[in-house]
Amino acid sequence: MDNFEFIDVQNQPSKRKFQLNRVGITGLKKPTVVRRKKRKVHLMVKFDIYVDLPSDQKGSHMSRNAEVINNIVDQSVRNPVDSLENLGLKIVDELLISHEYATYAQVDMESDYFLEKSSPLGRKSLENYGLRASAKKGRNNGGTKTLGVEVMGMSVCPCAMETIRGLLSAAHPEHRDFLQEIPMLSHNQRNVTYVEVQTDPKYELEADDLIEITEMSQSSPTYEILKRNDEGKVVLNAHKNPKFVEDVVRDILHKIMEMYPDFPDDTRLTVKSSSRESIHKHDAYAERTTTFKELRKD
Amino acid sequence: MDNFEFIDVQNQPSKRKFQLNRVGITGLKKPTVVRRKKRKVHLMVKFDIYVDLPSDQKGSHMSRNAEVINNIVDQSVRNPVDSLENLGLKIVDELLISHEYATYAQVDMESDYFLEKSSPLGRKSLENYGLRASAKKGRNNGGTKTLGVEVMGMSVCPCAMETIRGLLSAAHPEHRDFLQEIPMLSHNQRNVTYVEVQTDPKYELEADDLIEITEMSQSSPTYEILKRNDEGKVVLNAHKNPKFVEDVVRDILHKIMEMYPDFPDDTRLTVKSSSRESIHKHDAYAERTTTFKELRKD
Amino acid sequence: MDNFEFIDVQNQPSKRKFQLNRVGITGLKKPTVVRRKKRKVHLMVKFDIYVDLPSDQKGSHMSRNAEVINNIVDQSVRNPVDSLENLGLKIVDELLISHEYATYAQVDMESDYFLEKSSPLGRKSLENYGLRASAKKGRNNGGTKTLGVEVMGMSVCPCAMETIRGLLSAAHPEHRDFLQEIPMLSHNQRNVTYVEVQTDPKYELEADDLIEITEMSQSSPTYEILKRNDEGKVVLNAHKNPKFVEDVVRDILHKIMEMYPDFPDDTRLTVKSSSRESIHKHDAYAERTTTFKELRKD
Amino acid sequence: MDNFEFIDVQNQPSKRKFQLNRVGITGLKKPTVVRRKKRKVHLMVKFDIYVDLPSDQKGSHMSRNAEVINNIVDQSVRNPVDSLENLGLKIVDELLISHEYATYAQVDMESDYFLEKSSPLGRKSLENYGLRASAKKGRNNGGTKTLGVEVMGMSVCPCAMETIRGLLSAAHPEHRDFLQEIPMLSHNQRNVTYVEVQTDPKYELEADDLIEITEMSQSSPTYEILKRNDEGKVVLNAHKNPKFVEDVVRDILHKIMEMYPDFPDDTRLTVKSSSRESIHKHDAYAERTTTFKELRKD
Repeated sequence: MDNFEFIDVQNQPSKRKFQLNRVGITGLKKPTVVRRKKRKVHLMVKFDIYVDLPSDQKGSHMSRNAEVINNIVDQSVRNPVDSLENLGLKIVDELLISHEYATYAQVDMESDYFLEKSSPLGRKSLENYGLRASAKKGRNNGGTKTLGVEVMGMSVCPCAMETIRGLLSAAHPEHRDFLQEIPMLSHNQRNVTYVEVQTDPKYELEADDLIEITEMSQSSPTYEILKRNDEGKVVLNAHKNPKFVEDVVRDILHKIMEMYPDFPDDTRLTVKSSSRESIHKHDAYAERTTTFKELRKD
Repeated sequence: MDNFEFIDVQNQPSKRKFQLNRVGITGLKKPTVVRRKKRKVHLMVKFDIYVDLPSDQKGSHMSRNAEVINNIVDQSVRNPVDSLENLGLKIVDELLISHEYATYAQVDMESDYFLEKSSPLGRKSLENYGLRASAKKGRNNGGTKTLGVEVMGMSVCPCAMETIRGLLSAAHPEHRDFLQEIPMLSHNQRNVTYVEVQTDPKYELEADDLIEITEMSQSSPTYEILKRNDEGKVVLNAHKNPKFVEDVVRDILHKIMEMYPDFPDDTRLTVKSSSRESIHKHDAYAERTTTFKELRKD
Repeated sequence: MDNFEFIDVQNQPSKRKFQLNRVGITGLKKPTVVRRKKRKVHLMVKFDIYVDLPSDQKGSHMSRNAEVINNIVDQSVRNPVDSLENLGLKIVDELLISHEYATYAQVDMESDYFLEKSSPLGRKSLENYGLRASAKKGRNNGGTKTLGVEVMGMSVCPCAMETIRGLLSAAHPEHRDFLQEIPMLSHNQRNVTYVEVQTDPKYELEADDLIEITEMSQSSPTYEILKRNDEGKVVLNAHKNPKFVEDVVRDILHKIMEMYPDFPDDTRLTVKSSSRESIHKHDAYAERTTTFKELRKD
Repeated sequence: MDNFEFIDVQNQPSKRKFQLNRVGITGLKKPTVVRRKKRKVHLMVKFDIYVDLPSDQKGSHMSRNAEVINNIVDQSVRNPVDSLENLGLKIVDELLISHEYATYAQVDMESDYFLEKSSPLGRKSLENYGLRASAKKGRNNGGTKTLGVEVMGMSVCPCAMETIRGLLSAAHPEHRDFLQEIPMLSHNQRNVTYVEVQTDPKYELEADDLIEITEMSQSSPTYEILKRNDEGKVVLNAHKNPKFVEDVVRDILHKIMEMYPDFPDDTRLTVKSSSRESIHKHDAYAERTTTFKELRKD
């Protein structure tokens, strides 16, 4: 079999002359190590890896995508990169070398992520977040990198709270002033918020900052371990800070613009907040997807 | 090609002589019609269909499973059966006929299901539930039928409520009596509860009853449309009726035993309740899986 | 309680002055009826319904979204609309009326869908597809409608087929000519392809056509019931028609451009094809997202 | 607030006197380290943690479950346990200490898992598997431990292969002998097989062995990176080894019984194999759930 010549089917001319935006492999899982502030972080990353395909070539050489991931991630275990999005930039550079016919490369990554957090009364626990990162690059441009975080927190409805305050005040008119003063019961629930910034590779992004901003914009962060006193504090704090999904998104927009004043106008920002309503079987949702340029005008 | 004789590979003797419990097809979706209390209900059912396989036969004839489903469900469109679990009984009878080598047949079905419900102030809406049904039958026994419902409602934590009452009473000792009297804020959230009864085919089960029992055991049902007054009522009612997942399960056990006093001791009951905790990223869970015999001793 | 005045919290001015693109409810399920070529089709639709929110208003009145869906879908049961995307257009019109502050409305819908198909030897069965539809409209423009279909078929790898042909020819040089002549074994697998067209409401789209185009572009359609002869035909046909995901996408692009020659340049087309590779744990993927204008230049 | 006495709501007597089998928390994710054959393996584990609840106690102290996980997993980072199921045994021991009212404890764990594997031509890659482990213990018994693996491989249909051989032989009678000799094309697809052994804690289980047994029982293992020659080998090997899901299950049953001859009769074994059929939209499925005692009789 040694002297057998295989046909390179992928390299044959294509019959239908259409360029394709993205051709590659999706759902490749791999353990990956990044260095965050002097600690090594072990991630379990799902990779989607693409290049474009010119109109006159039949197929993309997809095994090269897996090879690139393999080489770069292997190196990262010995010599960790400082972030997932910067690992992505190395991957797209390598993709453009290994796919000589491609003019564009993209990698999307996602992983669970953990940070130590402190409850109101100081108990430490490891909290679970979602991390997403991308890198995209044309052969003749600097490309972009993207970092996104998904944060599960708590939201308390401001509207139902005032309705209840009204109902109780009407039923107990003699306590009206006291009822104005204290936090009222309302419906509350899991709020899942996603924040993503896409910008030029030279600017630094930090997942821990995006997570912090998001948790500070929900009614309250949530915690793995809450003994009775801590639980009371979390619930009270959340009810002192009721938030619509609209409020969550707007507060994040505001804090992001404050945190990155030097980022260029073409920086893209996506904020999506979903409350898994305790009083409905469906979710409440708010979103803003835009550029820093637009936000600077708002 | 006409005179070609295919080898019946499935009918060949098996090399490894092991009986198999369940061999069949899973994930077959089909629109199905059942008649409920004089109205036709259009369901979109996912079917898993199995028979057992004797140790000396290589393969099961799986296309027969799809044929049986096809025939019986087609008939049901013209001449609707009165419940999904009774449709299942017809299916297992047919499976035992078409798989002459099998000694056992099973079908598991699931579908979304909708019921019109009224909010506290009387607004009607169509609420979404999960429906599961099974039928199982040995060649020489009467078999069983199973009906399960999944119900999304609201749960309010009784423990955090008392903690908050304590915290507010300590902070406002002059209002201690009033704070004892009114419903207190707490964390609340989506509660998803599953109730399943497995019994002899001759006993009648009714999904609408199981749903009613479950909704009455959560802190409150949830609704598609709640204008401000209704929303206030639902939230207040739920806080007047705080429930641990343990309480939800136990209240359902109690009501089921009251509803089916004549069901035999070997009737099986499963109740699982999961609260998607608004203060944690994980869920709270309680379960009882048992027989009526055991429950009658509790 | 009658004389109690509720505060309209949503109508209050917002503290953070950011416009929001999309605010609404997601994951609302509802049985829906559409009329397709004289038959009534019962769908189980998941709705996501949004309007935008001006920068100076605190919250959107989300219960109005559920009310609009409720009214329009109720009407559709008595008087079915002729397609999901046209139902969507009615919904966005109504959303712009009920949310007087909004300048934009959007509804996204998805449902399982079934069509009767014939196997190569003529056996009829009901095959399962995914249906998605959207409508989007600004207050001062005609908007767009979108129709998408997800089709599960079979793909056979053309590259491995030629490798195998080479390996067998090298091992059996005396049969080289015969091996050139017959279809060769290869890896094959489930291919899941999504095709979506977005255009002006005045043009007619037909899901059955998009499904047909997609099935004709995979190596073979797949079927619920295949007795031995039919199974042989399907497998042989697929191996006579090997397809990379790239081929699937390009063939669909070609057929769509042929089918809709009169559609305007700004019509948007998305084609995504994913093969759940039988030889890998990851998927192969190809995509083209573009306008008719671009495709007419390719 | 210091002198405030919280009510221990959980410790109050229950109104409904029903024992509950399992009360606890589900979906708690945590990075965990185990030591496998001298290497440290970083896992991302999802934990479900339960104890039972006596009929006279209102609620379980759920935060204790999270505390137990936290302590034991923290210790495991410094001083890794040698397997997930043995970590589970430590957890259930601790649960029975911290829940003094419980008579039973259970922990279920699942994680992605990776092993270096070699393709037919010797290329090494890290392959992705699913790992599940459980430990269950009554207060007065030794309990059990459970280890399960989920393995994605390839299955080739033996039946369609013979049909195709027949069809081609009928069409090319002069090549009938050659067509008998070579592997024939068939439909092939992803096969996902789950194998689980539950036994006494004193017996040693090894995930890598269960994975090896499973991969050797499918038509072929699958690989992350396959250059053309390797791809050809994998596809040819798989077609020389066609397997129904029934064959996959039976071959695993046989190999498990050979591998663990000393395991006691009450050892429980579950084998489930699902082929994501390339010619159907549904899956083919086979299962055997039984004890070693039963298997020794087969």
